[in-house]
Amino acid sequence: MNTRYGVGWRLVWYALNVITSEGASVMSTNRLPVVAGNGLLDRRVFLRKGLAFATIVGASSYLQEGVAQEQAARGLEPWMTQPGIGFSPYGQPAKHESHVARVFGFNFKDFENNGAAWTPLEHMQGTLTPNGLHFVRSHQGTPDIDPAKHFLYIHGEVQKPWKFSVADLLKMPMESRQIFLECGGNSNASWADDPVQKTVGTIHGLISTAEWTGVPLAYLLKQLGVKPAAQWVVATGADAGAFDMSIPLAKMMDDCLVALYQNGERLRPENGYPVRLIVPGWKAVLSIKWLSSLELSKEPAMSRNETARYTELLPSGQSRQFSSVMEVKSVITSPSHGMRLSGPGVYEITGLAWSGAGKIKRVEVSADGGKSWAPASLLSANLPMCTNRFRIAWKWDGKPCVLKSRAIDEKGTVQPMRDDLIAKRGKKGFYHYNAVVSWEVDSVGYVSHTYE
Amino acid sequence: MNTRYGVGWRLVWYALNVITSEGASVMSTNRLPVVAGNGLLDRRVFLRKGLAFATIVGASSYLQEGVAQEQAARGLEPWMTQPGIGFSPYGQPAKHESHVARVFGFNFKDFENNGAAWTPLEHMQGTLTPNGLHFVRSHQGTPDIDPAKHFLYIHGEVQKPWKFSVADLLKMPMESRQIFLECGGNSNASWADDPVQKTVGTIHGLISTAEWTGVPLAYLLKQLGVKPAAQWVVATGADAGAFDMSIPLAKMMDDCLVALYQNGERLRPENGYPVRLIVPGWKAVLSIKWLSSLELSKEPAMSRNETARYTELLPSGQSRQFSSVMEVKSVITSPSHGMRLSGPGVYEITGLAWSGAGKIKRVEVSADGGKSWAPASLLSANLPMCTNRFRIAWKWDGKPCVLKSRAIDEKGTVQPMRDDLIAKRGKKGFYHYNAVVSWEVDSVGYVSHTYE
Repeated sequence: MNTRYGVGWRLVWYALNVITSEGASVMSTNRLPVVAGNGLLDRRVFLRKGLAFATIVGASSYLQEGVAQEQAARGLEPWMTQPGIGFSPYGQPAKHESHVARVFGFNFKDFENNGAAWTPLEHMQGTLTPNGLHFVRSHQGTPDIDPAKHFLYIHGEVQKPWKFSVADLLKMPMESRQIFLECGGNSNASWADDPVQKTVGTIHGLISTAEWTGVPLAYLLKQLGVKPAAQWVVATGADAGAFDMSIPLAKMMDDCLVALYQNGERLRPENGYPVRLIVPGWKAVLSIKWLSSLELSKEPAMSRNETARYTELLPSGQSRQFSSVMEVKSVITSPSHGMRLSGPGVYEITGLAWSGAGKIKRVEVSADGGKSWAPASLLSANLPMCTNRFRIAWKWDGKPCVLKSRAIDEKGTVQPMRDDLIAKRGKKGFYHYNAVVSWEVDSVGYVSHTYE
Repeated sequence: MNTRYGVGWRLVWYALNVITSEGASVMSTNRLPVVAGNGLLDRRVFLRKGLAFATIVGASSYLQEGVAQEQAARGLEPWMTQPGIGFSPYGQPAKHESHVARVFGFNFKDFENNGAAWTPLEHMQGTLTPNGLHFVRSHQGTPDIDPAKHFLYIHGEVQKPWKFSVADLLKMPMESRQIFLECGGNSNASWADDPVQKTVGTIHGLISTAEWTGVPLAYLLKQLGVKPAAQWVVATGADAGAFDMSIPLAKMMDDCLVALYQNGERLRPENGYPVRLIVPGWKAVLSIKWLSSLELSKEPAMSRNETARYTELLPSGQSRQFSSVMEVKSVITSPSHGMRLSGPGVYEITGLAWSGAGKIKRVEVSADGGKSWAPASLLSANLPMCTNRFRIAWKWDGKPCVLKSRAIDEKGTVQPMRDDLIAKRGKKGFYHYNAVVSWEVDSVGYVSHTYE
């Protein structure tokens, strides 16, 4: 089909450098705007006339002959022959999209409804997560809270202990921020010796992004008067386990929110209704749901959740504790495990990148198993502690290969390779897996998970 | 209660200028950080110790005595005595929030399910609209489309007419943008001689904001080859009326999307599933839902929807046609019609501002009926053609007053006063009402709509 359009592959030859894993530069060797090995292309290829389009559409496209006639002659589809459906107070997804759903499991036997529900990243685009698909990790299920009977106590090392009703909080000054929440245990199937063969959402979907609106903790605490001895804040939820964790006071004063709204509407029950703490950029377990108590203290609580859980056993035999910041990370969501490329041609590789340390500075993609890398495009709305979506063009030649992405954040921290992460942290840490993710494409286009 | 906290109202005296409607400056005359007449305060008041908090919480608060004891002694709420609810594939809002719903009406008798559903702005925060609450305007209801049988034809003045399946489009390169959509008829109840007494959502709620992801029109059209004669694109939907409108080719090539995703998930049926055109910053009727045809043409179609409808009759007797850009606008969402202030004290005034011409540069708020104005704070994530949320602190003294907001966009265009808009456009234009909105607060705190 290439010759059909005349210009075909005869795009302007770009003398772009290719970054290799050794840091050397090589020149592209054909007439495509190649930016790294094995067919990674400058994204501007999509704005040239000709081949890119034809190749992407490939065998599933319709030829131009007869299209105009068909368009002119086509009859009405059934849904055009009668008035459509009326309005609803609160809309729902299309019935044809019912497969786009959270996958959940109860792998934790210590309490009923202790488990997690993963966001189906393989079905999603952009950066935001609709509230119905936001990931959930709950240790004892979602409490059925009556907001009129729920209170937030702020007490301990504070001059004026206070009890807030939800109605009180709703009258307070608020801030809004788009922020990712990522479970500290996200991607932890990747510690296994063999690559687990599951979808990107089921491996890495304990991350979601929403616009959270709430009352700044700094506002509340300044009004109540923090005593000089206070160094920590123990946050507790109103679930059946009274789930509690300790957060340094300095972080609470810096950017934490007592959140009441999620993507414009009030919080969802499984995400903390009616009140949730939001701790930007830090492991999501600290963003205590169903928030009912903030106790200012001299020391952390040393609760079960920050001693027996949510610490990482290191090769030295010691454990990391209070490991809070979710480190720089990225994952290709398409193509990813379980998808199949329809044949050789040009594709868009896309995925998500994020860092608890701030903004994403760059995402690099490799189509040759990490030998060479090219920078992907990012959204201009690059918000700190928020997911960004990266995209790059790629011409697949039909041969087996390995795709990877690695993110670099504004602090200059580079997402580690798996071997480097394991060398540093061992394999028994359970939490904070942020290594480069690799997808293998076989000769028929099937994509699977690999550690190569 | 002021004296309880020692510092009370004795905040640092700010010598801030007050902008009056005459352009003169006056100094604040008390010890509060006053920034404009009738109690508008510098937002930093919220980060001072003392009175701001006590006043906002006011009579509904709980005194400090006994709170610590109560916290220590309180028993478990019923929802803490048993495991909570399990997981769901797709979550729903809290049952206690069922009043947060679109309000809809069928005021248009020409076709079944011809009407609109308004976003309940009075219940919302932040800038985004959850998909379930996105406004809807449909002229013949929502078609029940099978995506496997839906096609997009691109034809007319194009070198290669083409037929795209939805599966084809899903393989294309995409872009994501957070964009407001506003119906050209939004706020049109405000043309009435007397101010309609309805909520802010029911008057102004034909605006919503989402992150839309789709294929850039420029990409598709460059691949297909635009013929030199093409100047317009006629977009048609697959609803029962085959709703069609004409859009200039230059706009289509500039920033329009063939959208497939809304806030990360596939489009909602009432918002165009499976394919919708997105025309950023322009009246939402152009963002054709259930998009099935794009015909490139030399002239606009002069369809019913761009002749008999969606034109504005001017005082001259002529009509404006192809009036596309949604002009700079803002509205205070809290306090707003139907709310009641609980008594004198400090409140946060907040609302939304947007402009189809680009970013919001500034929002000014008046608490004295427009005599003086102070700039409100805006979100730092100030995206073009996207809603921004403004906030300012206000001390209500308990006396009747009128609150207003006015937005200025990056082009320097100022949201007009109602009299000025009517002087220019008359009262019979029906569409494009973007004048300053005024809310009257009476002596008992009840808020109502006014033209004062």
